[in-house]
Amino acid sequence: MKFAELETPALILDLDRLKANTGKMMARCEAMNVILRPHLKTSKSVEVAKLATGGRMGTVTVSTLQEAEYFANAGFDDILYAVGITPNKFARVDRIQRETGKTIVLTVDSIEMARAVRVHGLTCPVLLEIDCGEHRGGIDQNDGSILEIATILAKNFKGVMSHAGHSYATDDIKTVRDIAAREVGAAVHVADRIRAAGIPVETVSIGSTPTVLHADSLEGITEVRAGIYMVWDLCQLGRKMCKIDDLALSVLATVVGHNRNAGVLTVDAGALAMSKDIGAQNHMSNVGFGLLCDVETLAPFDLRISGVHQEHGTVPVNSEADFERLPIGAMVRVLPGHACLTAAAGHGRFHVTNCEIWDRCDGWV
Amino acid sequence: MKFAELETPALILDLDRLKANTGKMMARCEAMNVILRPHLKTSKSVEVAKLATGGRMGTVTVSTLQEAEYFANAGFDDILYAVGITPNKFARVDRIQRETGKTIVLTVDSIEMARAVRVHGLTCPVLLEIDCGEHRGGIDQNDGSILEIATILAKNFKGVMSHAGHSYATDDIKTVRDIAAREVGAAVHVADRIRAAGIPVETVSIGSTPTVLHADSLEGITEVRAGIYMVWDLCQLGRKMCKIDDLALSVLATVVGHNRNAGVLTVDAGALAMSKDIGAQNHMSNVGFGLLCDVETLAPFDLRISGVHQEHGTVPVNSEADFERLPIGAMVRVLPGHACLTAAAGHGRFHVTNCEIWDRCDGWV
Repeated sequence: MKFAELETPALILDLDRLKANTGKMMARCEAMNVILRPHLKTSKSVEVAKLATGGRMGTVTVSTLQEAEYFANAGFDDILYAVGITPNKFARVDRIQRETGKTIVLTVDSIEMARAVRVHGLTCPVLLEIDCGEHRGGIDQNDGSILEIATILAKNFKGVMSHAGHSYATDDIKTVRDIAAREVGAAVHVADRIRAAGIPVETVSIGSTPTVLHADSLEGITEVRAGIYMVWDLCQLGRKMCKIDDLALSVLATVVGHNRNAGVLTVDAGALAMSKDIGAQNHMSNVGFGLLCDVETLAPFDLRISGVHQEHGTVPVNSEADFERLPIGAMVRVLPGHACLTAAAGHGRFHVTNCEIWDRCDGWV
Repeated sequence: MKFAELETPALILDLDRLKANTGKMMARCEAMNVILRPHLKTSKSVEVAKLATGGRMGTVTVSTLQEAEYFANAGFDDILYAVGITPNKFARVDRIQRETGKTIVLTVDSIEMARAVRVHGLTCPVLLEIDCGEHRGGIDQNDGSILEIATILAKNFKGVMSHAGHSYATDDIKTVRDIAAREVGAAVHVADRIRAAGIPVETVSIGSTPTVLHADSLEGITEVRAGIYMVWDLCQLGRKMCKIDDLALSVLATVVGHNRNAGVLTVDAGALAMSKDIGAQNHMSNVGFGLLCDVETLAPFDLRISGVHQEHGTVPVNSEADFERLPIGAMVRVLPGHACLTAAAGHGRFHVTNCEIWDRCDGWV
């Protein structure tokens, strides 16, 4: 790949690593006998999604209706919109289904929204979201309204889903296993309660990359959702979920200045190109907003972006030798802290290592 | 404006506030007898730029070549690209000038890049960047290479520029005044040194909103650059640079969930819609990633987004009354911490309070 011919900053996707990562997850799901419903919010890319589904082009997860529309138009079916639906989004959901003939699956976690779905006459299958400890979306597994919601949803009711987003907060695999067990337990418990009331539960969905990879058992689970495993990032590396050679996403950047007085060099990858996420620092020291690497080999230098302005990243050097190794105009690749936010930050496309350009569906409209 | 008809999240621009803010800055510059070269990296919008220049459509600042191309195509002339230029961007600069007939002004801070500009035969005027204390771009005002750079640049040499980005780090107006005095001093000192060597210096440019607004004297300065004053944000409010009623940018969001067990509600404005910038917290407590406000009046509630996931913002409630005031499906407007990053995060357009939609030029290509 001729990096020197690209304008910077640019988002680079390593195809070999992507294929290895998606292949491993498909094998894991096959071995665990669950359907994989890959989350496409990181890649927002049809080509990546085809690899992640092994060409099935079905049972995927999205985080915006923009993604839902983009993937439906590309031929994907059975698209779970995994953010609680509200009435101001019904018209678009209706339109996407009508225009594409594809199925959008919705989530609710309240009596009010279950009723709104029915009153509006939406034809979408709906999952009831259960809070298994993340305390974001979802209702408690013992909430008194669960049967009422399933009953109200009637023919729209498809099953239950849970997301253990708090599994990202630890680098201890045993803790991840415990969280996975509780995520599985909560989803299965609710499914059993609903079935005991005579209502069929087709789908029992859990997911987060850490819990899918480390759950000891997925007994009772029909499908899993995961996303970051496709490209990984420093957040996940710090949490021991992957190896550095698994990271498939990087930002190509150019050294645009040397400030010898301050002992920093600047690159043209700042707060927009990288994002301001520094969650990777929680479990890895000295990674800042991203690790500088050799442009060709992706071998890490001992250099990080420690500060960002909108278009500038500042990189403290270790010695004069770093200025010599990286003269103004030199290119580097930067491994991002949080790949989801870096990818969605405005790059608009992937430059893939097979020299193709793959589009993305960033934004909301 | 019929907010209920908009899909969320959406970026809302208050036109009255924008006009008041841009008017005040033009009046300030006229009173101080300096040319205003507004920085368009926050708005990335032709319509905003027309207001910011009072219809002049000239002497503007940008942070990407994407912006340079967009504004040149829209008829703007004399566009300063205020990030150190490198050779991998020469071809695009050349093309923009050739295709539009507009002038792109470049910045350099090294002998190497001054030489590269000349060797390539670029016709662009070039400013030499001086580090006045921010320690990002620029060379020291006493650097021994200043005259050599001006000499190498020859007919391309147009003047000097400095940016006191460190003026954003304080909420003490006296400190801002001191930083402004040093910024002005550094730029004028270098201009004088170059003039003393017989080289004309047409432009002496400084800027950052705080230093432009609070400098006691701009003696010797020909032009100023500032940007955030157009829309302001919580970062600037916390630093006492504006009043809350000056904030012209907000994110329209919908309440998508109530988690009573956890005492939080969730909105569909997360890390992408808001950005992960929490710099506003440095000088204002309890603002998190953004302050929730009444959708019609923009009157702040006592509620903030305290945590963000990619598409979810979590908002701790004060009492049950907050759940009742903001049922699932209700809309709010969220004042952003850092408007530049919020605006560029993928919204792609402004919904203006006069019901128009104004486009933006996000990204790099």
